[in-house]
Parts: sequence; structure tokens; C-alpha cells
Amino acid sequence: MLALIFNGGVKLVSDYPAPRAKRGEALVAVSVAGVCRTDLEISRGYMNFSGVMGHEFVGRVVDGPKAWVDKRVVGEINCICGHCDMCKSGLSNHCRERTVIGIDGRDGALAEFISLPVRNLHKVPDNVDDEQAVFIEPLAAAFQVVRQVKFSRRDEIIVLGDGRLGQLVARVLKGHVNDLLLVGKHADKLIAAEKQGIQTCVATDFVPCKRAAVVVEATGSSSGFELATRTVRPRGTIVLKSTFATESGCNLAPLVVDEVTVVGSRCGPFPEAIRALSKGEVDISALISRRFSLREGLQALKAAQDPRNIKVLIHVQK
Amino acid sequence: MLALIFNGGVKLVSDYPAPRAKRGEALVAVSVAGVCRTDLEISRGYMNFSGVMGHEFVGRVVDGPKAWVDKRVVGEINCICGHCDMCKSGLSNHCRERTVIGIDGRDGALAEFISLPVRNLHKVPDNVDDEQAVFIEPLAAAFQVVRQVKFSRRDEIIVLGDGRLGQLVARVLKGHVNDLLLVGKHADKLIAAEKQGIQTCVATDFVPCKRAAVVVEATGSSSGFELATRTVRPRGTIVLKSTFATESGCNLAPLVVDEVTVVGSRCGPFPEAIRALSKGEVDISALISRRFSLREGLQALKAAQDPRNIKVLIHVQK
Repeated sequence: MLALIFNGGVKLVSDYPAPRAKRGEALVAVSVAGVCRTDLEISRGYMNFSGVMGHEFVGRVVDGPKAWVDKRVVGEINCICGHCDMCKSGLSNHCRERTVIGIDGRDGALAEFISLPVRNLHKVPDNVDDEQAVFIEPLAAAFQVVRQVKFSRRDEIIVLGDGRLGQLVARVLKGHVNDLLLVGKHADKLIAAEKQGIQTCVATDFVPCKRAAVVVEATGSSSGFELATRTVRPRGTIVLKSTFATESGCNLAPLVVDEVTVVGSRCGPFPEAIRALSKGEVDISALISRRFSLREGLQALKAAQDPRNIKVLIHVQK
Repeated sequence: MLALIFNGGVKLVSDYPAPRAKRGEALVAVSVAGVCRTDLEISRGYMNFSGVMGHEFVGRVVDGPKAWVDKRVVGEINCICGHCDMCKSGLSNHCRERTVIGIDGRDGALAEFISLPVRNLHKVPDNVDDEQAVFIEPLAAAFQVVRQVKFSRRDEIIVLGDGRLGQLVARVLKGHVNDLLLVGKHADKLIAAEKQGIQTCVATDFVPCKRAAVVVEATGSSSGFELATRTVRPRGTIVLKSTFATESGCNLAPLVVDEVTVVGSRCGPFPEAIRALSKGEVDISALISRRFSLREGLQALKAAQDPRNIKVLIHVQK
């Protein structure tokens, strides 16, 4: 099958062996997939991954348990053992033995087919189209912020980073607080957020003053983290949404002096993301910057590296 | 008066102007003071402090409101405005306008006299001697861990660092959990903890395996923080007790992947520390390594830099 793989370098191959659905798994024909910042990091060697890249996708089940065949689905990315201490304590996203599609020990979604455990699947409502459905995984990650951090409607919340994840986090938080600000470097991306009623500020005009109850760090840079420590109020919370692929210098003293809490935040609840899209509570239309076919996979990755683009989609099946 | 000051460099001076108690303040004749790691950092330029060093002390009130005169006291280190948003929201330790004795904008305790607001004072019970009383400030900081972090008696907790603060934190936590381990580099310091019934492990024998619900980072080094990220379990908590004076390289990606919470922790509740010492619940006797007079202040600072010493005390008044 056609697949975009990483194996020391990124390659588009046409003869990658198509997966088969093992017991408890479903074989999914991928319709549309998204390119995520993590994919770009993997293309630079993050996680020492090798195999088919990609973890954001929507597709149709073509083989597996009868109840799932022909259903339009998205899939959670962590494939779990179900037996370890994490799984048993309800933290299966942190399964000690997990594989993660397109990230860790398991082929991903930038291919014609992907096989994954049935328990990872979620049906997509008819009124959520394929391009919206690709956002379910990152939107779920955005909802995780609301799950992990306690705040009140009157709290001041600042999201740093106008990229894919910052945009989604801001859209989710908009419904929960009155005083929300998205800080970013790109005027056109900020306009996309403003159109959703989100207040924004260009980074060069932003003056941090340790007033925000919650700061969401979604820039993926150590300078973003440093800015977060100067933006959050004493006893406030910084939510870290971005993984840093490289060792980065950072000064943790302000966390101690100001007794700040830092909360690492990764995957989130798919059902909440699906419901929000289905009810039209979150509008992602302005976030799609470029569309490619899988055959144009290498160009798609390149486009995703361009900071002017927010989200790059790959249409796998026509 | 005799005072150990920092002014670009550390100096012992005999003609430092003695303070006078302003309105709402008490003048305290210092009996015994402790040397803290923060003092060592200040001696290297931390906080750009200048003035009398030191913030751990016990003394006797010699001037001020009648009710306080002649009382044996310790003092909280944050001198607050009482009017800012932090003070009004009950977070006066984070007062926006605060001065901090011996650390930020206010003379400290390594001198014959110190003046500080009466509201900062706590009386010392008769059964807590001067050398114990010097530990009230750092012991309160240790109690802050219990205040800030939720854990159950069955949770595994690991304290990294066998220095002054790690020792105190372990002594406080001992009463709260069954599964406590203190990890340090110095056999003799670990023995001091073992004598208090605290299980210990030499750092070279310690194998981190992401199992601890809570890890308290009290090494004050970036390598300690890195070790903490490999010791804490997914969704666990790292408590940062040490300020780092210098920019340090650190990789924050594990915090995101494992959804770890990092809690910065600074000053704590004096009443709890006083009660614990008065009731004999915490034994600090084995922590005093060296004693000096104020005239030997420079030697005292030097001794505090020696990793073999746990706590160095300075007897100011004979």
C-alpha cells in the first residue's frame, strides 16, 4: 500500500505491506489524516520511531468485528495492555506497555490502511464531516486542559501559541471563561481566532505581568515556557501542552518562588471532542490551511513546517 | 553593630547601623541564626541582594509593642503590604510589594539585631530551645509540602536530596505515609535520617522506575530535577523545593508525555512547625553539623558550602 514512513528519514513508499486486523482489531481504510507537530518531531528522530507516520485520522472500517464494519471512525492513539498498574488504576493512556500509533512501536495513519484495537474506535456522527473529524484527536487533547485544571469563570486565562493546538485550546476554553487571551506571532492566525470571538494579542505587543490564573503553553518552545513563568500569577497554573524534542535550557526558580503548578497535558477525551463538533460548539473550518493527497505526502510535511500554515490535511482515499 | 553583609561580596562588618523598630515593628536581638542554601546563593549574587544576610533565626524582642517585649520569637520572612491582590486573596506570602528578610530588599538576621513587622512574629514555646527554634522556618517550608500536595498513606513518596531541606521534608512526611524513601549522596547524612526511622538509599544504588506518586526534589540541581522526572509515575507529582540560581538545561517533554504535575513550594506554616518541635514529633538534633559565633561568620558560610555538613548555626548572642 501507499504509505508515508519514517525510517531514519521520511519516505513515501508504494509497497508497504498492508496491515491485517488481528483479533480484537479493526482494519480501517483511512479517508483523511492530519499532520501534527509531533509528526514533524518524529521526522527529526523523536521517539526513535520507525514505521508509518501519523496519528490523526478518520476512516471507514473495512474488516474486523461485524458491528464495526463499514462504520466511519476515528481512533484513540494509545494501544494498551489492560493489565499493568496504570491500566488497572484507570490511567490506561499511560499504560506501561502501550504502543502509540505513528509515534511509538506501531504503524500510523499516513497510509491507505491502519489496523488498531476496536476499543480505540469511536464512531463519527453523520453531521461531522471527514475534515472536521480529523480534528477530534487534537481537539480531545485540548479538552484535556479543562479536565485537568480547576478554574473559575472569572479567572484570567492566557494561551500562548497560535498554532494548531493553541487555536483548539482557545476554542475549547472560550466556553468556560470570560477573560481569555490568545497570544501568538502570526497576524493571520490570530484573525482566525478573533473570528471565533477569541480575544488575541500579537506576541510583540504582549506584556507579561504575572496576573493570569492559568497559562496554557502551546508554543512548543523553551522561550514560550519562560514567557509562561512571567505571565502566570503566584500560585497559578501553567499547562504544558507541547513536547519539546530537544534538551532546552530553562530556569525553574520562578516556579518555586511563585509556587506555580505546572501540569503536563497530553491526550484527552474523544467523546467530548466529538460532541463539541457535532453540536457546532467548536468551529475548526478556518484552521485548515492546505490539502494534499497521500502521494503528495512529502510536500504536505514540508507545508506543515511552514509557520504560516495552521493545519495541513492529507486526503488518502478520494 | 556586628553584621554579615552582602554587597557584591560577603563581608563581616562591625559598624553596620543597628535597625530601629518602626511603627508596627519589633526590634529583636538575634540569639541564633542558621545558614541556608539560599544564603549561599545570595553570596553568589542571587536576587541582586544587598544588606544583612540571613533569614533563619530566633531571638528576643528588645523594643516594640509592649506585649512582645522580652518574648522569645521567630519570624516569618515575607514582609507584606496587606493591600495588593495577593494579600487580599489570602496569599500574602506572594505579596506583590513584599520585602523578604535577608533575601529581597530588607536586612536579614545574621547580625546582632533585626527589625521586622510584629505580624511576622511567633512566640517560641519554652520547651523548644534556641537551636531547635532556628529550624522553625525551614521546617515550616517542609510542612508546606503536606499542605500543597494531596496523597494517601499508601502512596509511594521519594525525597531526592539528603541536605537540610530534604532531611526536614522526610521527617515531616514520615508521619504521613508508609512508603517513604530518602535518596542522597552522603552516607553519613543518610544515617542521620535512618536514625529517625526513615528508609534511605544511596543515589548510586537508586534505580528510578516511574513508580512514585510524589517525588520531592530537594537537591537543588538540574540533574536532581531530571532524576525526578524518571522517578515519578505517570500522573504523579514532583514537588520543587529548591530554587536554582542559574539557568539550567532541562528537558520538559517527560512532564507532558507522563502528564506529571510539578508544584513549586516555598515558605510554609510556622504554627505547624512550632507545634511539631514542641511535641517532639520532629527531631532535628542530628542535623546540626557545625556551630560558629557571628564573628566567625565567614567561616560559617564556608562550612555551609561543604557538602559534608548538614546545618551550620551561628550563635550571635552568647
